[in-house]
Amino acid sequence: MDGSRLHTQTERTPVDPAVPAAPTTITAIHLTPILVADPPLLNTQGVHQPYTPRLIIEVITAGGAAGLGETYGDTRYLALARPLADALIGRPVTDLNALPRLAAEVCGDSPAATGAEDVTAGGLRGVQTADKLRLSVLSGFEVACLDAWGRHAGLPVHALLGGKVRDRVDYSAYLFYRWAGHPGGRGEPDDWGAALDPPGVVAQAGRFHDTYGFRSFKLKGGVFEPAQEIAAVRALATAFPGRPLRLDPNGAWSVATSLKAAHELQDVLEYLEDPTSTTTHMAEVASRTDLPLATNMCVTTFAEIREAFTRDAVQVVLCDHHYWGGLRSTRELAAICRTFGVGLSMHSNTHLGISLAAMTHVAATVPDLRYACDTHYPWQTEDVLTERLTFTDGALPVSDAPGLGVTLDRDRLAALHGRWLSDDGTLRDRDDAAAMRAADPEWVTPRVPRW
Amino acid sequence: MDGSRLHTQTERTPVDPAVPAAPTTITAIHLTPILVADPPLLNTQGVHQPYTPRLIIEVITAGGAAGLGETYGDTRYLALARPLADALIGRPVTDLNALPRLAAEVCGDSPAATGAEDVTAGGLRGVQTADKLRLSVLSGFEVACLDAWGRHAGLPVHALLGGKVRDRVDYSAYLFYRWAGHPGGRGEPDDWGAALDPPGVVAQAGRFHDTYGFRSFKLKGGVFEPAQEIAAVRALATAFPGRPLRLDPNGAWSVATSLKAAHELQDVLEYLEDPTSTTTHMAEVASRTDLPLATNMCVTTFAEIREAFTRDAVQVVLCDHHYWGGLRSTRELAAICRTFGVGLSMHSNTHLGISLAAMTHVAATVPDLRYACDTHYPWQTEDVLTERLTFTDGALPVSDAPGLGVTLDRDRLAALHGRWLSDDGTLRDRDDAAAMRAADPEWVTPRVPRW
Repeated sequence: MDGSRLHTQTERTPVDPAVPAAPTTITAIHLTPILVADPPLLNTQGVHQPYTPRLIIEVITAGGAAGLGETYGDTRYLALARPLADALIGRPVTDLNALPRLAAEVCGDSPAATGAEDVTAGGLRGVQTADKLRLSVLSGFEVACLDAWGRHAGLPVHALLGGKVRDRVDYSAYLFYRWAGHPGGRGEPDDWGAALDPPGVVAQAGRFHDTYGFRSFKLKGGVFEPAQEIAAVRALATAFPGRPLRLDPNGAWSVATSLKAAHELQDVLEYLEDPTSTTTHMAEVASRTDLPLATNMCVTTFAEIREAFTRDAVQVVLCDHHYWGGLRSTRELAAICRTFGVGLSMHSNTHLGISLAAMTHVAATVPDLRYACDTHYPWQTEDVLTERLTFTDGALPVSDAPGLGVTLDRDRLAALHGRWLSDDGTLRDRDDAAAMRAADPEWVTPRVPRW
Repeated sequence: MDGSRLHTQTERTPVDPAVPAAPTTITAIHLTPILVADPPLLNTQGVHQPYTPRLIIEVITAGGAAGLGETYGDTRYLALARPLADALIGRPVTDLNALPRLAAEVCGDSPAATGAEDVTAGGLRGVQTADKLRLSVLSGFEVACLDAWGRHAGLPVHALLGGKVRDRVDYSAYLFYRWAGHPGGRGEPDDWGAALDPPGVVAQAGRFHDTYGFRSFKLKGGVFEPAQEIAAVRALATAFPGRPLRLDPNGAWSVATSLKAAHELQDVLEYLEDPTSTTTHMAEVASRTDLPLATNMCVTTFAEIREAFTRDAVQVVLCDHHYWGGLRSTRELAAICRTFGVGLSMHSNTHLGISLAAMTHVAATVPDLRYACDTHYPWQTEDVLTERLTFTDGALPVSDAPGLGVTLDRDRLAALHGRWLSDDGTLRDRDDAAAMRAADPEWVTPRVPRW
């Protein structure tokens, strides 16, 4: 992947220069891959790399509106973004229903888009299929188009989704076992310190609570023996009595371990997230506990819904507009969950402020989003915005400014792109197992169930 | 219901006249009930009245845009429309996600909105609940808001739904057993003549085909002995070999009769629509035939989907934006059907050109609408538009003009409203059984299964 080629403007001369393009016509798209600092957060696959790739998308219209989008920046996502950007030039930003077909057409033959890997190889993002890869790429374009459309029309993105039904969106604290720093002192330092046991988790939660006002707490598990993670959740329950708590071992547990944990934490957990891998195992756990099971692993595509819902394998789906193909698809997922009596929450991978703004807009429009949304944002000290989004009382206000309501900082974007350009390729694809091998050369991605 | 009161402008003075309202703010809403000519079309409940009530909704914005909507005009719909219109003044036309809550708030205590009737008492429109009544009313407001928004923004309604994925929408010929005229010569005469046997149905189909180019044919059944209706479908198959055919007895048959008909027509029907009443009976039929079953009776609300889809009771859902709460909800229904592998077609009750335009816009945006849509429109010789929509080769072009792309004819509207005003109340609520009693004083609504 040649960086300079990626970071050029895709532009096309109108067929007939005498006919002016409609103001909503896309005339240019900038694709800028970046590497953004990420703390040493632990999960069952390994640890976050010192820097993680993201792709920043700018859609420019004939009328001068510029829209921002953000999605995964790994190489195979970038490989699909380029032909999709080319295909969008000359089309109106409003033409969103055409995106899936366009993406299938231009990405269909790409080697990056073919072949499905299984969930363990794919890692933490659930099943990996060509369809889902395309949806993850096009989601960034959909958000950028909505932002541009909103700026053009003077309407916030939530209005383009039918309007907000709440003025603020609650987020939860996303607690991680973590080291104080990356192995070898790589990456950007921070002052959070290590959190490797229940007191460390409680201290981290306290800082999240005091700094941002978060009222819900989610612990990323699957890192230590289940007994320690169960103890950490109980310590949180003691420190923050009555607050909604969640534990997410990322499918690392067996059915038996999941049931044991569900039993021990039933009185304090709001939901147990992906205790075990596969719909079949989740259904088995669900049939033997009253604790709601949530997922962002066994249901991450529309194709997985029918089986999971019919078998009552999950009680809460964590939506993610990146996985599901954009903000409008996320609303469709919400409608499906509502219809089948399945709860809705929101998932987060490492992301920046553009995606956080997009998450907030769509969350504001979904009537039955009754859980605080996940976000990694507090862990991201770097952003490409002129002004970071600020949590107050654990929530973000829903912006009524045109578009997403965020502004690109070109200097920051250039700096983070420069980091991507100067990388030797080792960090351009997120690989938590590889990052772990910097500390433990013998590390291999654990098989599930790990416990 | 006092007509003059209904046909007034709902308007509110701004809180602070010095602060100009945003251009998309609703400043006035006109509600105009009308009676529109309807031919003597037969169904299992009785016969269409000489005139049928519809409600025409005009939403006016501060920026001067006017949007049109249309929905059922029966008294209990009108009773809910007035408070909803009042509640919408001062709100932006873009604020569509708020409509369900607003409708529930302002209509919740209305006597018209309380109490559920069963499906047989409710008649041909499926289950009748307070929720569904509200959705049917708000659908007209949603369409009017989308039309106003589109006119303001210079965008067609399909663009506000994410853009069209096709340039024309196929419709099917809607064949009815019918009399030459209404009893006692009431109503508006037409030259279609009677169709009361297989040759009459084939002749009617021929005229539909020659005049409009329709390539699919649906026969409204449940009127005569099943054997005659089966013979009519076979006569259609002979006259139009290979063309998609449908038969809709409106739930009038037993499971055994349904299965017999399915067996006899399996080789010529595209789908069999509502052969029998209730999800349980449909599931029983579906389990014993390969012929797809369609419905616009046992699944007409989101609440009915889970059971029907889980039991595989229906293979095609006929969407109807009136029932389902608007064009955006119709798209959500489409997403649910797509996710569960259930086909999607489109239902029609008697309607005018505003609703036909709305149906066409939403149908144009749904990727997997693979069946020609139903429409009563060719039977409606009267309309409130300056220019009627015209079928070519059985399809309507998808308008790219701002909004719905139709224009209100105020003289026609006034004339049809005048007819509503001068009615003594007997036609203000559609009652096919009452209309039948004009010919057969002993007629009572048949119990199902009728055969």
